[in-house]
Amino acid sequence: MSSHPIGVFDSGVGGLTVFRALEAALPHESLVYLGDTARVPYGPKSAETVERYALEAARFLRGQDVKMLVVACNSASSVAMEALREQHSIPITGVIGPGARRAAAMTRSGKVGVIGTRGTIASEAYVRAIHEQAPDADVVSRACPLFVPLAEEGWTHNDVARQVAQTYLGSLRDASVDTLVLGCTHYPLLKTVIGEVMGSDVKLVDSAEAVAAEVRKRLEDDEIQATGGPAPLDHRFFVTDAPAPFQRVAERFLGRPLGRLERAKIEGG
Amino acid sequence: MSSHPIGVFDSGVGGLTVFRALEAALPHESLVYLGDTARVPYGPKSAETVERYALEAARFLRGQDVKMLVVACNSASSVAMEALREQHSIPITGVIGPGARRAAAMTRSGKVGVIGTRGTIASEAYVRAIHEQAPDADVVSRACPLFVPLAEEGWTHNDVARQVAQTYLGSLRDASVDTLVLGCTHYPLLKTVIGEVMGSDVKLVDSAEAVAAEVRKRLEDDEIQATGGPAPLDHRFFVTDAPAPFQRVAERFLGRPLGRLERAKIEGG
Repeated sequence: MSSHPIGVFDSGVGGLTVFRALEAALPHESLVYLGDTARVPYGPKSAETVERYALEAARFLRGQDVKMLVVACNSASSVAMEALREQHSIPITGVIGPGARRAAAMTRSGKVGVIGTRGTIASEAYVRAIHEQAPDADVVSRACPLFVPLAEEGWTHNDVARQVAQTYLGSLRDASVDTLVLGCTHYPLLKTVIGEVMGSDVKLVDSAEAVAAEVRKRLEDDEIQATGGPAPLDHRFFVTDAPAPFQRVAERFLGRPLGRLERAKIEGG
Repeated sequence: MSSHPIGVFDSGVGGLTVFRALEAALPHESLVYLGDTARVPYGPKSAETVERYALEAARFLRGQDVKMLVVACNSASSVAMEALREQHSIPITGVIGPGARRAAAMTRSGKVGVIGTRGTIASEAYVRAIHEQAPDADVVSRACPLFVPLAEEGWTHNDVARQVAQTYLGSLRDASVDTLVLGCTHYPLLKTVIGEVMGSDVKLVDSAEAVAAEVRKRLEDDEIQATGGPAPLDHRFFVTDAPAPFQRVAERFLGRPLGRLERAKIEGG
């Protein structure tokens, strides 16, 4: 048992989809969220730079005395897990492994699509993780760099969104994948349009719930879950840029007021 | 006379449009370019954070012994000029002033449109700068956050680009502006589509040439221009993230090999 919080980290606001799933699955746990909004996005940046940012974020969250770290950012999960585990002895979960395991379990045809940022796709982390579960799976990947700015602009259901989705997803539709991993935490916001373009036969995998299930199991295995008292009201949020714009978007994401939101001064930030 | 280089600074690759104009207008000058690719884009970030990044970039370029600083980034020019001039006594030129002066000189109807990133438009720096020249001008502004990712994706002439431009520019067309300031160094890449949507009667102002003309004048006024010897071959380029992706885009931008490109370690970067 441990009453320490769980640290959740993303480049910006997208990781709140994971935060929300954790909150729902683990109502007794306290959460500390860090969004690196001063340096967002990580997707187009080099593996080396994203790894450095992830290590700085982890050090900040360790300073908040977290018992476990959830890397709720696909770009960071795809390049920084090894370095994070080398530097920190607490349990660390990324979003790639849980999403890949769920996709491998869901596919019937063995044809799996993966979409993500340029960095995530270039790392081939999903391809490797899916092959660990299903060595014969046929994995087709596609970087979709415009999906994040579209989601942040709030253009998630208009003609532009549809046309961008058609342009990006054509090759995945042609490959007849039966399962598509939404390999970026922003993409669930475009689920409707992506589903329309892919067709109702294709199952969409949103890693957030898979992550929450694996985090719960890990807390139980390590016997560091919260005591089971009343639900904590003390989740904390940190950002590296001005809090106000994050607060607006985050409250829309979560459908409620944020509570404690502060600016984090992180090394190198 | 001074053989010291001119420092040119942008959040990423967009400022190369200004670099190119400077190189053409000032063939005897050496240039040092810094692209803060590890923290790009500045557009969506707070004024406070962009100011801090600009100050760090300026300190790095002063370390390269520059005689003048050109802030080739609209977001930084719109919020950081005052702080930069407080900390540095060398001449400093941004892109807002030259672009605004050119627009004020070009408009016949007095109705001027300005497009830019969220940060640039929110700062109202263009509105103030245009009103300094033409107090009665009617300035209509519009943030176009998707233009930068479109340009970086290379989608500058397709249907998506056209549809995005139509969505953003409708209000400016309705306002019957006769002059439109491209208030972001990426936007000239979308000039064709923007021109199509606005119509051939509307004059598009690309600040790059206006900046180059003002820099030349300032060098002459301060008598710090280069000696007029043979053209220098020693322009230097620095980036804060991995050099390779910048090099590819930059060579496409400039239409020639880059020469000396190095990774800059800047304070806080």
